[in-house]
Amino acid sequence: MPRSKETARATLENLYRIFTVPEEPESTLGTIDQAISKDVAGFLQTHIVALERSLEEIEGDFSSSLIPEEPTFVSDYTGFVKEKLVAQSVHTAAPGFIGHMTSALPYFMLPLSRIMTALNQNTVKVETSKAFTPLERQVLAMLHRLVYRGDDAFYQQWIHDSRHALGAFCSGGTIANVTALWVARNRLFAPAGTFRGIGSEGLARALKHLDCEGVAVLVSKRGHYSFGKAADLLGIGRDNLVMVETDARNRIDMTLLKAEIRRLRAEKIRPLALIGIAGTTETGNVDPLEALADLAGEIGCHFHVDAAWGGPTLFSEGHRHLLEGIDRADSVTIDAHKQLYVPMGAGMVVFKDPTALSAIEHHANYILRHGSKDLGSHTLEGSRPGKAMLVHAGLSIIGRKGYELLIDLGIERAGSFAAMIRLHPDFELTSEPELNILTYRYCPRTLQELLARATTVQRDRINALLDQVNQLLQKYQREAGKTFVSRTRLRVSAYGLQEVTVLRAVLANPLTTDEVLQAVLAEQCAIVQQPEMAALLEHVEALSKEISSS
Amino acid sequence: MPRSKETARATLENLYRIFTVPEEPESTLGTIDQAISKDVAGFLQTHIVALERSLEEIEGDFSSSLIPEEPTFVSDYTGFVKEKLVAQSVHTAAPGFIGHMTSALPYFMLPLSRIMTALNQNTVKVETSKAFTPLERQVLAMLHRLVYRGDDAFYQQWIHDSRHALGAFCSGGTIANVTALWVARNRLFAPAGTFRGIGSEGLARALKHLDCEGVAVLVSKRGHYSFGKAADLLGIGRDNLVMVETDARNRIDMTLLKAEIRRLRAEKIRPLALIGIAGTTETGNVDPLEALADLAGEIGCHFHVDAAWGGPTLFSEGHRHLLEGIDRADSVTIDAHKQLYVPMGAGMVVFKDPTALSAIEHHANYILRHGSKDLGSHTLEGSRPGKAMLVHAGLSIIGRKGYELLIDLGIERAGSFAAMIRLHPDFELTSEPELNILTYRYCPRTLQELLARATTVQRDRINALLDQVNQLLQKYQREAGKTFVSRTRLRVSAYGLQEVTVLRAVLANPLTTDEVLQAVLAEQCAIVQQPEMAALLEHVEALSKEISSS
Repeated sequence: MPRSKETARATLENLYRIFTVPEEPESTLGTIDQAISKDVAGFLQTHIVALERSLEEIEGDFSSSLIPEEPTFVSDYTGFVKEKLVAQSVHTAAPGFIGHMTSALPYFMLPLSRIMTALNQNTVKVETSKAFTPLERQVLAMLHRLVYRGDDAFYQQWIHDSRHALGAFCSGGTIANVTALWVARNRLFAPAGTFRGIGSEGLARALKHLDCEGVAVLVSKRGHYSFGKAADLLGIGRDNLVMVETDARNRIDMTLLKAEIRRLRAEKIRPLALIGIAGTTETGNVDPLEALADLAGEIGCHFHVDAAWGGPTLFSEGHRHLLEGIDRADSVTIDAHKQLYVPMGAGMVVFKDPTALSAIEHHANYILRHGSKDLGSHTLEGSRPGKAMLVHAGLSIIGRKGYELLIDLGIERAGSFAAMIRLHPDFELTSEPELNILTYRYCPRTLQELLARATTVQRDRINALLDQVNQLLQKYQREAGKTFVSRTRLRVSAYGLQEVTVLRAVLANPLTTDEVLQAVLAEQCAIVQQPEMAALLEHVEALSKEISSS
Repeated sequence: MPRSKETARATLENLYRIFTVPEEPESTLGTIDQAISKDVAGFLQTHIVALERSLEEIEGDFSSSLIPEEPTFVSDYTGFVKEKLVAQSVHTAAPGFIGHMTSALPYFMLPLSRIMTALNQNTVKVETSKAFTPLERQVLAMLHRLVYRGDDAFYQQWIHDSRHALGAFCSGGTIANVTALWVARNRLFAPAGTFRGIGSEGLARALKHLDCEGVAVLVSKRGHYSFGKAADLLGIGRDNLVMVETDARNRIDMTLLKAEIRRLRAEKIRPLALIGIAGTTETGNVDPLEALADLAGEIGCHFHVDAAWGGPTLFSEGHRHLLEGIDRADSVTIDAHKQLYVPMGAGMVVFKDPTALSAIEHHANYILRHGSKDLGSHTLEGSRPGKAMLVHAGLSIIGRKGYELLIDLGIERAGSFAAMIRLHPDFELTSEPELNILTYRYCPRTLQELLARATTVQRDRINALLDQVNQLLQKYQREAGKTFVSRTRLRVSAYGLQEVTVLRAVLANPLTTDEVLQAVLAEQCAIVQQPEMAALLEHVEALSKEISSS
């Protein structure tokens, strides 16, 4: 848009221009689009995160609370975006950004996202989405089949059934998990006799109806924090989200779980759902799903599997056995914006029983009418974009075998990273990778040996110092903006289940090579040598000497 | 991607290629992108909705539940998308598509959405979003200020406060409304003495703590269906979502509301929240917000305003008085994908008290740590895209004055459409537009006169037939794919509050001219003449004669 010919004034004519797709895309939209594409591509090839400026400094560019009175030129605004936003954002797709569950995207997601945005469909109802409705139903059926392996006849019957849905498409795993527990709660307190169901009568009456003091959800300590939100939101209370201790491999301890169930029953608290995790957020481990399914069956409660991360492991012939028992779950969460490599904002929950979602069914006069195929009658969210299209694209273009390669590659890479850490004199592996996530920490071999023979008190003192070292190490590495790992706190069985600060790596970006992983460790070794850390490491050394000589 | 050189096999090499941004955008990504842009632009200029094929027919293209084993060429897949999906989607941006709350998008939203997708930030935490975090906080502050008009000092204090958030960015208005009621519920049952709060102890104990039988949410019959979901989800129960009758202008009847509150109190049910609507979904009316604020103050309960639709009316100097009292609300929902003209999937809720969201605050070990500025500690959703960027873009590029023009234009257009309908011999206006939404129905002048003097029984018989006529009329118009209105059922005061089927028009697309509106009515008159409707209209005529002569 040549500035000389235009004025950014709020006139009707200017407005019409803004709302009209330019007839010659080369002249206006095309120019902006191309410039942006080049800048983004350039950005994606340079750095991970803005290194020069602190968050507090960046806040200065976003500090006005006044909505601008006058319009701005699109070209001026995109200048601002490039300089102040794009340049100061995080390069989540970089091969060295292995700290969180983000990855490079397949490039075809960009033009296809563009179609999705331009069409601006609203999948809450057929009247604003048409073909996007059967497409979303198909995607849900595909994921359902990946998990539950029903036969053709089953899917033929249910895939486009107007009264039911095989699952719900969500903005992410949190809404998927909330939806699963919402359904579980409403099915436990289903209408019976004069009781019209918890949806109508509410939780307090529902508890009276089944003569119990409360309901509980049970999950391991590695459970995602969304279950805490769900327990709060659903009126269950966080006290009744029972987080069970894990074994040395970060998997739920079945003996302790059973003890908790006995305790709850003694307190007249009814188990509402057992949750198995297929790919814990912090360590990537898988709970014993078969055993959990058995137990849920025995006590007659809902069995939910949070496979937000690990679900796509089912694509791999070689590794799908790790999730054995998942097909016995009543509901399964899978995030498409994680290992289906779809852009942010796409999660799903599928239900074994195609009528399960009826427990939260709702209608309105102007949409979602009874008998319509409107997807919105079975979702927590209302208006939603046509994101299922991008899952459909991934499944079609990458295919089952393509995803299998990606999954296998990540698991293999995690194995080789674990081997590097084990061999490295300065690091300690704190959780073995089962899928493609591992944790480790800076802890030189000499300290490891010292810790092995230290008293509990000595061990705690060393670990407290190491916690500080690892926390700063992660911070400085993030700020330097070259490579990135995240950090969390974990009970490590080697140290009597003491909680220590660990570094966390997620190996899901196919562009992350062993060389990149070597560079991550090399950078960490260099950071530890920096003057900022000197005082802290002196403390560690002094303490080591004191202990050794004692 | 020239097919001769490529094979769509699942090989590592092919995978790397898919995950790498092509260096010469012109050759691969660029080509696909350009082809798609042209196709989409072409599509956007032709039709509203696929006319040839029924939904059942379209389902045939989305009927396989098997995930493809082998990869597909991107070019083949985009061919499928163009033919089977884009061509069979709904042209929600067409000027004649006035049935739902979708509109044309400002064209700059497309390239900016592309940046957002390419950067793939996750705004749940700073580590995956950096500058997108202060940007989202700024957008929330801007909307907060639009509603609450705080001063500079207020926003300087709160805008980037690490412990608090002025609001929550959501996937849409439903999550925004749920968040508002969640906060209201948790604040009513806040920790006190030995009671550790509803979030920890759950709803049943909370009710005991305040010695009440239940809690209730009160809203008019025009309230959005998301409040029903919220009441269910939060454990309140749909029975305790009290939907109060409206006056002739579709606004909550304050006398009946007060009577309901008395009834609830007598039943020991505590009012949790009063909800005022600023722009009812079906009729675009605004509740008496001042009176509701007074009442909420008197009875000491949360006052929420659902301004998902009408919120941006605040941009208009001439019309913002319609929302007087909104600044007294404890929380306000505004949808960005409605009248802020942002692509689907963007809602917000802002809270008057900057500490209100603490009632649902949550933390985790690996993110959302205490003291971090991670946005995710105050949102219902977890991982989320950087959609706030598009709201920021709209506010900056269109500006307050630009949005004012859009709002004024829509209200003006609704007024002129209402005038057309009033003058037209075949239509009856069933709700006067207050903002930019109105309802009407096919009901020729002679029938209107007849209805005015008919007995109740006669009136009901005529209206029952007219319901069928209007239902079919809407259906045939939708199927013809030229123009589109929606339909709903409303109690119309002229007919003793009898519920009748009405047509609904939403006038928010700036490209919708009076000529387009004339064409909508003209098409409806033509449809009524079609042979499919003949039998039905004969019934109407016969009945009219019978009544006239009686």
